[in-house]
Amino acid sequence: MSASIREQGLKKPVTVAEYLFKRLHEVGIRSVHGVPGDFNLVALDYVSKAGLKWVGSVNELNAAYAADGYARIKGISALVTTFGVGELSAMNGVAGAYSEHVPVVHIVGCPSTTSQRSGMLLHHTLGNGDFNVFANMSSQISCDSARLNNPAEVADQIDNSLRKCWIHSRPVYMMLPTDMVEKKIEGARLDQPIDLAEPKNDEERENYVVDVVLGYLHAAKSPIILVDACAVRHRVLDEVRELVGKTGLPVFVTPMGKGAIDETSPTYGGVYAGTGSHPNVSARVEAADLVLSIGTLKSDFNTTGFSYRTSQLNTIDFHSTHCTVRYSEYPGVAMRGVLRKVVARVDRGKLSKQPSAEVVNEVAANRDSSDTITQAYFWPRIGEYLLEKDIVVTETGTANFGIWETKFPPGVTGVDQILWGSIGWSVGAAQGAALAAKDMGVDRRTVLFVGDGSFQLTAQEVSTMIRHNLKITIFLIYNEGFTIERFIHGMEAEYNDVSRWHYTDVPTVFGASDKQVRKLVVKTKDQLEKMLTETEFNKAGGLQFVELWMPKHDAPRALKITTEMAAKQNAED
Amino acid sequence: MSASIREQGLKKPVTVAEYLFKRLHEVGIRSVHGVPGDFNLVALDYVSKAGLKWVGSVNELNAAYAADGYARIKGISALVTTFGVGELSAMNGVAGAYSEHVPVVHIVGCPSTTSQRSGMLLHHTLGNGDFNVFANMSSQISCDSARLNNPAEVADQIDNSLRKCWIHSRPVYMMLPTDMVEKKIEGARLDQPIDLAEPKNDEERENYVVDVVLGYLHAAKSPIILVDACAVRHRVLDEVRELVGKTGLPVFVTPMGKGAIDETSPTYGGVYAGTGSHPNVSARVEAADLVLSIGTLKSDFNTTGFSYRTSQLNTIDFHSTHCTVRYSEYPGVAMRGVLRKVVARVDRGKLSKQPSAEVVNEVAANRDSSDTITQAYFWPRIGEYLLEKDIVVTETGTANFGIWETKFPPGVTGVDQILWGSIGWSVGAAQGAALAAKDMGVDRRTVLFVGDGSFQLTAQEVSTMIRHNLKITIFLIYNEGFTIERFIHGMEAEYNDVSRWHYTDVPTVFGASDKQVRKLVVKTKDQLEKMLTETEFNKAGGLQFVELWMPKHDAPRALKITTEMAAKQNAED
Ligand SMILES: Cc1ncc(C[n+]2csc(CCOP(=O)(O)OP(=O)(O)O)c2C)c(N)n1
Ligand SMILES: Cc1ncc(C[n+]2csc(CCOP(=O)(O)OP(=O)(O)O)c2C)c(N)n1
Ligand SMILES: [Mg+2]
Ligand SMILES: [Mg+2]
Repeated sequence: MSASIREQGLKKPVTVAEYLFKRLHEVGIRSVHGVPGDFNLVALDYVSKAGLKWVGSVNELNAAYAADGYARIKGISALVTTFGVGELSAMNGVAGAYSEHVPVVHIVGCPSTTSQRSGMLLHHTLGNGDFNVFANMSSQISCDSARLNNPAEVADQIDNSLRKCWIHSRPVYMMLPTDMVEKKIEGARLDQPIDLAEPKNDEERENYVVDVVLGYLHAAKSPIILVDACAVRHRVLDEVRELVGKTGLPVFVTPMGKGAIDETSPTYGGVYAGTGSHPNVSARVEAADLVLSIGTLKSDFNTTGFSYRTSQLNTIDFHSTHCTVRYSEYPGVAMRGVLRKVVARVDRGKLSKQPSAEVVNEVAANRDSSDTITQAYFWPRIGEYLLEKDIVVTETGTANFGIWETKFPPGVTGVDQILWGSIGWSVGAAQGAALAAKDMGVDRRTVLFVGDGSFQLTAQEVSTMIRHNLKITIFLIYNEGFTIERFIHGMEAEYNDVSRWHYTDVPTVFGASDKQVRKLVVKTKDQLEKMLTETEFNKAGGLQFVELWMPKHDAPRALKITTEMAAKQNAED
Repeated sequence: MSASIREQGLKKPVTVAEYLFKRLHEVGIRSVHGVPGDFNLVALDYVSKAGLKWVGSVNELNAAYAADGYARIKGISALVTTFGVGELSAMNGVAGAYSEHVPVVHIVGCPSTTSQRSGMLLHHTLGNGDFNVFANMSSQISCDSARLNNPAEVADQIDNSLRKCWIHSRPVYMMLPTDMVEKKIEGARLDQPIDLAEPKNDEERENYVVDVVLGYLHAAKSPIILVDACAVRHRVLDEVRELVGKTGLPVFVTPMGKGAIDETSPTYGGVYAGTGSHPNVSARVEAADLVLSIGTLKSDFNTTGFSYRTSQLNTIDFHSTHCTVRYSEYPGVAMRGVLRKVVARVDRGKLSKQPSAEVVNEVAANRDSSDTITQAYFWPRIGEYLLEKDIVVTETGTANFGIWETKFPPGVTGVDQILWGSIGWSVGAAQGAALAAKDMGVDRRTVLFVGDGSFQLTAQEVSTMIRHNLKITIFLIYNEGFTIERFIHGMEAEYNDVSRWHYTDVPTVFGASDKQVRKLVVKTKDQLEKMLTETEFNKAGGLQFVELWMPKHDAPRALKITTEMAAKQNAED
């Protein structure tokens, strides 16, 4: 069919770019991350027309990290890069979103279909006429890849991709050729929202699983609930909270699940991660005769090196794609439906509840007489500083492990990347998270804890925070380098040192006026105390940058155990 | 064969890491770029033992760019990253090296073979137990991939990979599991250097091609020589210079070949790039009845949008893998052998030579009466500032096109990335190039021209320059954003703006003392003149950072033509 005949048949013609960005708006995106390039420029003209804001990060990796952070708060996000150079720069960030189940729509502006067909020797190519090589690479880290080459198919492809992105909670990849951007397609489709509903479980199978679960649950003597990453990412927290509320069972989180549960609720039991857990926590969890394990993701750093001492014979696993009861598997039975029915049908009278120990921020117990801000002291103290609904971003390094010792106020969202663990991620992610909160019109503080080593990888994303006037409080842990790596190997090795930057001047150099940013250096417990109790600091009315001195050879308890395990694993024959 | 029996048979046992790094030293590498990670830490202990220096870049993309720059000066380079997060961050940088024919040895420290075999849910994985996914991605941008999993094969794999890296002048990828690093292998092999010699052409075929070439050359009325990227990358410049010297024919370079030829030699004719060329140049080149085209790489930005007006009927192409005479192809006949014999056998008496116009730095002609530093004025003026043997690094943007108007002194090396064109590259590349010069013990200035937009992507690599005390003069072209993109689309679009940084303070924030760095802001022609003629500035004894003001809407002549073509191509149906 010729283009013009096809176009004459359109009821409400819209351009491909308009269609795409309107769909992004519809699924909840308000800001689009990315970096311009000559193969995406024309498309960028349509961003604001669809009611979206262009963010314009400082580079593509940072943009990808920011999109990741944005999606964790707003539900989904978009990233626009340019062919080859841009998309490959973003690769590690998108791979992280894939690994950690974060829905990011990655749109790559690419050469026109004509140029592709004739295999032209264009810039941003490998010089071999292959225009599919980057898309092929990206297909490894996306749950859908769409090459938007044909106007007659584009709308279907877009709708289908967005649906997959949402349902699988993973990145999708779209390749948008320059000559497709303004092609006309049917806009009437936009009147019909994309169906984002999860497919329903087969009822008979679901009921069967629910009965099995209830059987074990009613029979158990000391059941507990354990909430992990995939409960958060696959959006069953409402169901989980109802389950916790109705059963009144002790509930624990894993490091990657931290923030999923109100930590001030009476049945909250703490962070379970095997041997790295607080002794009260491991005692209770490991004594349970039934673990309702929701969205578990047992990676090395989420389990202190695979050190769970729970038995699969006492475990029921709830997943987005299946459930497992002891060793019985139920493929295709997704957790949401099962959890809802368990909540509806559980007989409270038949439940037996063994309490867990109270969780507190152990500040006093960890306060030694020195001036030094130790890791042991800092993290519980932060628990007292945090406020309801804060967004707490922690970087791989001492921060990611220290935060286990921090008891959150209600409504706090924890944002971390414990599985993928790419350093520098948190700076971008904090930008995205804060922007998402702003886009939602809610007044939440974003608090970032990042190591000096990690910060250096992506420092310039602070420039984007300033550009968009984001209110972020950054705790830069200044401990003279890669402390986490020192504990794995090379305690004094030069390769674990980093250059001494003047960290607090970073925002200024990147364009912040003195009004826009507050800079603080905190070297002692007293200085920390003073800062954390100051009204202005707590208000966090703008960007706040704290250079926080901690000892080079100090690490949180759980980190020490984990790194020992990691070093052993590396050497293992 | 059990490990211990194998090891007992070794004459001079060395660890895998020792073997690898000694081989790197042997092929000419002295500094190793990269970023530590827990899967490469133990290997890093062997870097200095092999007489190599660890660079420790600020992130992996910058490290890859720096390795690219290092290889362009030193011949070959090495990059060490960690599994997943590190290697994917470097992807775009390595892809650039692949695209542009730069030999970089990429070594990825990865989980132990035991962990891989058991498919453990480790950090830095996609969570799917697939440990080959990143290697598969990298195989698209490497001319060899080696998984060093078996001590009995490792030495062969390493030697073979390094040979390919050198011969094909492209990246190779090596995956080094943690448990292999200290495995013992045969060190006696190290007494025998790796054979890096190019395979010889079949003599009869080669002679045939030489005769054909000489036939056309002796018959031509106005032959010329045109030198392009692959002549540089595949190391035939000695042969090319002999050809130029012996024949006395007019010689031209393409933008990607710039620096290949002594631009002060009497037969040098200028930069040919189709319609973007100086009128004298296009007149002479397009009037030639024979073009000896050496290492041509006719990408859009290297040809002002495919605007050559030469005919293949008048062209002989010399390549690293084949030659083409008019439309006759000679696969497998590599240029080096052919060029050597053409030099040896050419009959000077039979050559007819039509001169080309003299090339000069057209400073006066482009000096208008305003204070403004225009693009037209700046680049010829820089030609008078440059000194013999300078290393000149130019970034994608106005710089890459402006430099066409700069006539180089003898011995200048031009470093650019015109085909791949990833912005931010030049900051890393300048670090690597300067370090290479330092490693070679030669006193060459490294001069970088980078746009404000590009600089922001990789600014923190300045920190590495400082850490290693590199003497680099940075001209930061401050023109309020993405000027090159403005000319393609969105002249006033917000997405082409960048944040206003305090650029000259960047080195200070990244740790430079006032002694280590000189900061200058240059807004007018007079200020420029003063700086360029100052003795201290010309000495370039340390890091020098110049914020150079140029108009937002100003671009070099060739850039305007090229961007017009690019915009047309993008829209083309
Ligand atoms: C992109 C990337 N490169 C390298 C690593 C390896 N790595 C993991 S943690 C770490 C050091 C982090 O240091 P810092 O941020 O200072 O944390 P802390 O000192 O608090 O442990 C490094 C280099 C990584 N995880 N990701
Ligand atoms: C990694 C990457 N991202 C995006 C682009 C698209 N791009 C090409 S040039 C350019 C702008 C460069 O601006 P600047 O460095 O300021 O140069 P100038 O103003 O001198 O043209 C951009 C964004 C790219 N080439 N590479
Ligand atoms: Mg640190
Ligand atoms: Mg600029």
